[in-house]
Amino acid sequence: MNFAANTADGGFTRVPAQDELQLDPSAAYVHITSNETIEGVEFKREPEVGDVPLVCDASSDILSRPIPVEKYGLIYGGAQKNMGPSGVTLVIMREDLLPRLREGLATMLDYRTHAKDKSLHNTPNTWGIYVINLVCKWLKEKGGLEVMQRENEEKARLLYDAIDATDFYRGHADPDSRSMMNVTFRLPSEDLEKKFANEATAAGMDGLKGHRSVGGIRASIYNAFPREGCEALVEFMKEFERKNG
Amino acid sequence: MNFAANTADGGFTRVPAQDELQLDPSAAYVHITSNETIEGVEFKREPEVGDVPLVCDASSDILSRPIPVEKYGLIYGGAQKNMGPSGVTLVIMREDLLPRLREGLATMLDYRTHAKDKSLHNTPNTWGIYVINLVCKWLKEKGGLEVMQRENEEKARLLYDAIDATDFYRGHADPDSRSMMNVTFRLPSEDLEKKFANEATAAGMDGLKGHRSVGGIRASIYNAFPREGCEALVEFMKEFERKNG
Repeated sequence: MNFAANTADGGFTRVPAQDELQLDPSAAYVHITSNETIEGVEFKREPEVGDVPLVCDASSDILSRPIPVEKYGLIYGGAQKNMGPSGVTLVIMREDLLPRLREGLATMLDYRTHAKDKSLHNTPNTWGIYVINLVCKWLKEKGGLEVMQRENEEKARLLYDAIDATDFYRGHADPDSRSMMNVTFRLPSEDLEKKFANEATAAGMDGLKGHRSVGGIRASIYNAFPREGCEALVEFMKEFERKNG
Repeated sequence: MNFAANTADGGFTRVPAQDELQLDPSAAYVHITSNETIEGVEFKREPEVGDVPLVCDASSDILSRPIPVEKYGLIYGGAQKNMGPSGVTLVIMREDLLPRLREGLATMLDYRTHAKDKSLHNTPNTWGIYVINLVCKWLKEKGGLEVMQRENEEKARLLYDAIDATDFYRGHADPDSRSMMNVTFRLPSEDLEKKFANEATAAGMDGLKGHRSVGGIRASIYNAFPREGCEALVEFMKEFERKNG
């Protein structure tokens, strides 16, 4: 395994730039995670990786915006962020890559099994798939992924604008790498962050405590999260700063 | 692999008797499927297999009756017959067998992963598990698996009695091996079987056509299937014989 880029020096607060990538033209594939939920960083466009297949874990931002599927060799993702209930995994794979799979894989983990049987090899999570169908219909009726992207951008902008409007709040991710799904920020002290999360919970806004590995505050605003929720958080942020700033 | 028994000569219409088993004391395990849904045969009790761990696919009759769990090394089953929605697999395993697993298994297929993480290694099918919890509560309120077994026995008896009451219908499985979950039977001709299935569907009783590999009629009466449904089928059988017998 070759690390094409490593942003550890900055604390993983940004995605690597194109000219930083140390690509190996003989690699079997290049792997990215399009959106990283803990630090809240997201690729705004696909890295250029030449003829090597690009493989992407898109679990946390799939269906949040249109993506150029043709740029990928394989896209995979768990359903539970933007697609539907947990317990379903989506795989989109370029057919010409199937023969390149390793021999000796377990039947259910060998994508050839599912390609051959048109995704009906086993009895799957039927209810989960049914709900994903409803979600896809909802997205279509809404106007498609372009509309979803616009709504998500607006939701995220509300929060990032509130963060940038004052020195009390400090965005965690580099502005160019900011995630549209997971908005991460810090307060002047860990005590204030704790107080912020607790009072937000009391005010009906739960789940704002950052991931235990990085701390801070994290607002996850996946497709299903309404704009009104972001507006309410912005109001709460202003009021919290007024009282504690 | 050693076949401990083979009932192909009788057309797989029975489970093997204890004295037929050709057991290999050095085997890693002995595998049975407690209930076979196509022919409609079911083990009424566990075969005695000595010190070799007994492994059981209990997908189609788990929770239909109490079983002596201590007789098994490993029990596994898909949820979708008696436990709840599809997309959940239950595994009950003797802890002392964990170190005997083969090395090099894929993470998710290695039971040590799930044992170590108390079945919370990944985000599972939460809705499916929630519904299984409701089903387990329903079973408890009902009086437990003893009561469920009694109800299932009564449902099956209604159908087998109707089959045995006349020469028009002929039970497919040997009486000693008859499944409590899948009641299989034949009519005097394939044409009549077709007619039976079609008219039953028209009368609101769908899914009675036997599995394509054996033909005939199959009534699947899992836990959730009500006694009233069996009574209605018995009435339909009598009427169908009166008209076509």
